[in-house]
Amino acid sequence: MKRMSKSQSKRSKSTRKSSKKKKSSIKKESIKKRQAATLKELTGLGDTVYTQMMDGKFPSFNIPSRSTGNIVYDDELGQYRLDNKSVTRSARNIRHIRPFTQLVWTASFTHDLSRTGKTSTLRDIFYSAQAFDIDFQNQHESDNIITDLETILGHSREEFNVFPEERSAIFGDLTIEYTVKGYEGIRTNLTSHPDGFMIGPALSTAEFISTKANKVIVIEKGAMFTRFVEEQAFKKFKALLIHTAGQPPRLTRYIIRRLNDELGLPVYVFCDGDPWGMAIAITIICGSANAAHLSGLTTSEATWMGLYSSDIQKYDLPAERLKDVDVKRLYDMRKDPRCQEEPWKTQIDHFLKHKRKCELEAFSRYGLDYVVKKYLPERLG
Amino acid sequence: MKRMSKSQSKRSKSTRKSSKKKKSSIKKESIKKRQAATLKELTGLGDTVYTQMMDGKFPSFNIPSRSTGNIVYDDELGQYRLDNKSVTRSARNIRHIRPFTQLVWTASFTHDLSRTGKTSTLRDIFYSAQAFDIDFQNQHESDNIITDLETILGHSREEFNVFPEERSAIFGDLTIEYTVKGYEGIRTNLTSHPDGFMIGPALSTAEFISTKANKVIVIEKGAMFTRFVEEQAFKKFKALLIHTAGQPPRLTRYIIRRLNDELGLPVYVFCDGDPWGMAIAITIICGSANAAHLSGLTTSEATWMGLYSSDIQKYDLPAERLKDVDVKRLYDMRKDPRCQEEPWKTQIDHFLKHKRKCELEAFSRYGLDYVVKKYLPERLG
Repeated sequence: MKRMSKSQSKRSKSTRKSSKKKKSSIKKESIKKRQAATLKELTGLGDTVYTQMMDGKFPSFNIPSRSTGNIVYDDELGQYRLDNKSVTRSARNIRHIRPFTQLVWTASFTHDLSRTGKTSTLRDIFYSAQAFDIDFQNQHESDNIITDLETILGHSREEFNVFPEERSAIFGDLTIEYTVKGYEGIRTNLTSHPDGFMIGPALSTAEFISTKANKVIVIEKGAMFTRFVEEQAFKKFKALLIHTAGQPPRLTRYIIRRLNDELGLPVYVFCDGDPWGMAIAITIICGSANAAHLSGLTTSEATWMGLYSSDIQKYDLPAERLKDVDVKRLYDMRKDPRCQEEPWKTQIDHFLKHKRKCELEAFSRYGLDYVVKKYLPERLG
Repeated sequence: MKRMSKSQSKRSKSTRKSSKKKKSSIKKESIKKRQAATLKELTGLGDTVYTQMMDGKFPSFNIPSRSTGNIVYDDELGQYRLDNKSVTRSARNIRHIRPFTQLVWTASFTHDLSRTGKTSTLRDIFYSAQAFDIDFQNQHESDNIITDLETILGHSREEFNVFPEERSAIFGDLTIEYTVKGYEGIRTNLTSHPDGFMIGPALSTAEFISTKANKVIVIEKGAMFTRFVEEQAFKKFKALLIHTAGQPPRLTRYIIRRLNDELGLPVYVFCDGDPWGMAIAITIICGSANAAHLSGLTTSEATWMGLYSSDIQKYDLPAERLKDVDVKRLYDMRKDPRCQEEPWKTQIDHFLKHKRKCELEAFSRYGLDYVVKKYLPERLG
C-alpha cells in the first residue's frame, strides 16, 4: 500500500467537485434503476465472453489488481482506492481456466439472483456452486471470486444480492418504500418499531421517501441506541439513529452512505473511547484497505464525535487503563494515512499520554439520561 | 450438580399437569399485570428491609443457593432447577454488609427502572452504581448481585427491565400491541418489515393480540431466516419465524416461551448439524445450569428438528470432518442429563460414528429453495 499525496492524486479539487456533482445525480437515481444497471452490467459481462468466443477468441476478463502495491490512499477522496494496474484472466492460460470458469458461474448465479429478486450470502454461494458442479475447494476461494466480481463491476456484492449474515438496526422518522418482491410499493415509517428496524436486504434496497430528520447519529452500542430511543434523542435532535453492533456490517455502511448521499444528511459517529471505537469511526468515514476496490461504502463527510480521550477528563468518566494491545494499535494509527487530520491526531496523542480508555455507557454514572441531556447537546453544538 | 430421578422429582406427573394448568392461567395474565407484579415484589423487598429495621432487627434476605451442590436436573420439569438449600445474607454479618447494600441498591435501582418504564443493561448498571457511590469493583460483581436479585424474585432480569445487548429477530403473521412508554396501545403486524423485527425491550413486553400462525420455527442462522421469508415459508407452513443469531439471547428464549405458553404454538428448532447447533436447541428446550434459578426462559415443549447427523447421509449433504473439540463436546453431551432421550441419544451416537458435521446452508447445493420446498415438509410431516 502506498499513499498518494494531494498533488499526485488523480482526483484534483475539480474532480472532487465533479464527484460531488455525480453524487447529486445518484440522488435522483432510484434503487430500481440502480438494480437494473447492475443487472445490465452482469449481462454485459456475459455478452463479452459470448462475443469473444463467437469471434473465435479465448474469452478473457480485465480485472483491476488488488495487490498491496496497487492500493493507494487517496487524500482527496479520503479513502483507499485501487491504482492503475490490472490483471488479465484468460481462458487461454491453463492456470486461469479454473478461476475464469468460477467467475463466469458466479456472475451467472448472481445474475439469476438479481433477476429473480432473491438474496444469498457468501456461505450460500459456496454451497450453491456444488449444485452446478463448480468446484470451490473452500469458502475462501469462493469469497475471493466474489471480490473479483465486485472489482470488475465496481459494485459491492450487496448490489448483486449477496448480503452479509450480520444485522444492525436503524430508528427514526424516515418513511421508506420497499422494492423487494411481495412488498413493492409498501411504505413504513422507521419510528414504528421502538426496538429499531433490522437492516437487511429489504431495508437496504428500500427507497427513501421522506424524513423530518436533519442528521444521522451512528452509535456503536445497542444499549446506547436503546437509550437514545427511550430518551427521545431522535426527536430532540431530529436524528435518524443507527446502531452498528460493533464494526458495522457492510450493509450498514451502505445505508449510512445512502442517507448522506441521497438525503444530504450530515452523519455523526459516536463510539467507545478506545482505539477499537476509533477504528469503527474510521471504517465508516474512510473505509478499509481491503475494500479499496469499492467506493460506495464509505461516507467521507461523516464526523467522528467521540468518545474522545479528552472527554474522559472533561466529564470525569470512569476509565480503565489501556492494555498493551491498545497502545500498539494507537501507535499503528499514528502512522495510518486515514488518521493524519484533526481530531484524530490530537486524540491519538492524548490517548497515548493519559493511557486511559472509556466506554459510552460510562456516562451512566451521572444518570441514564445524562448522555442525551448533557453530552450530546454539548458535542453537537 | 446432581440429577433427580423421576421418583425423587418433586414434580410428579400430577404436579406437571397442574403446572400445565398454571400455564393456561399465565395465558390470561397480561404483560402489564406481570410488570405490576414484579414491581410489587420489588416494593415488597424494600418493605421487608424497612420492617425488619423498624422492629430493631438487622435486616436480612433469604436467597436460594446457586452453588453446584444445589443445582439439580429435574426430569419431570425437563430443566435444571435449584434444590432446597438457601443462604441468608444479613446486615448483622460484617462480611455481608457490602453485598447486602449492593443488593438493596440494585433492587431500588431496578424498581425505579420498572416504575418509569426505562430499560438498562448489565453494563449500564455497573456504571450507574457509581452515581450513588455504590462501589462495584468490576462488572462481574454487579452481574452477580443482579443474579441474586433474579434468584430472590424468581423472575429473570428482563422482567425488571435489565435487557441484554444482543438482538435477534422475529417475523410472521402476529399482531402485537406495545406497552412501552410512548407506544402504548399501538399495534403492528410482524410481517410488515421483511428483514424481521428486532427483539428488544419493546417487542418482548408487547401483548400478543392475534396470529394466523399455528407453529413457531426457530432458526440458528440469519441467512436461513431470510431464505424462509423470501421463499414464503412463513405462509406455506403458517409459521412464526425466529432467528436466534447463534446462541439465543435470553430475550429470544423468553419470547419463544411466551409464544408457546400464551398462544399454545408448538415450537420447532432448526440448527446446524453439529454439537454447537445441538447446544442451541438444548438451551431453548432445557435451559442451562447457570440459569437454574429461573424457569421462565425454557420451552420444554419445543422440539429439536435438525439438522440431524442422519440427515447428512439421507440428503447427501456436503459435510466436514468433526474436529477434536467437536468430538469432545459430543462425549460430554452423551453424559448430559438433558440429552438422555430421543432423538438426542441416537443422533449423538450417529455423529460419533460417522464423524461428520454439516451446516444448514448446505441444502443450497440443491438450489436455494430446496430447504423450504423439500426438507421442511418432510421433517414437519
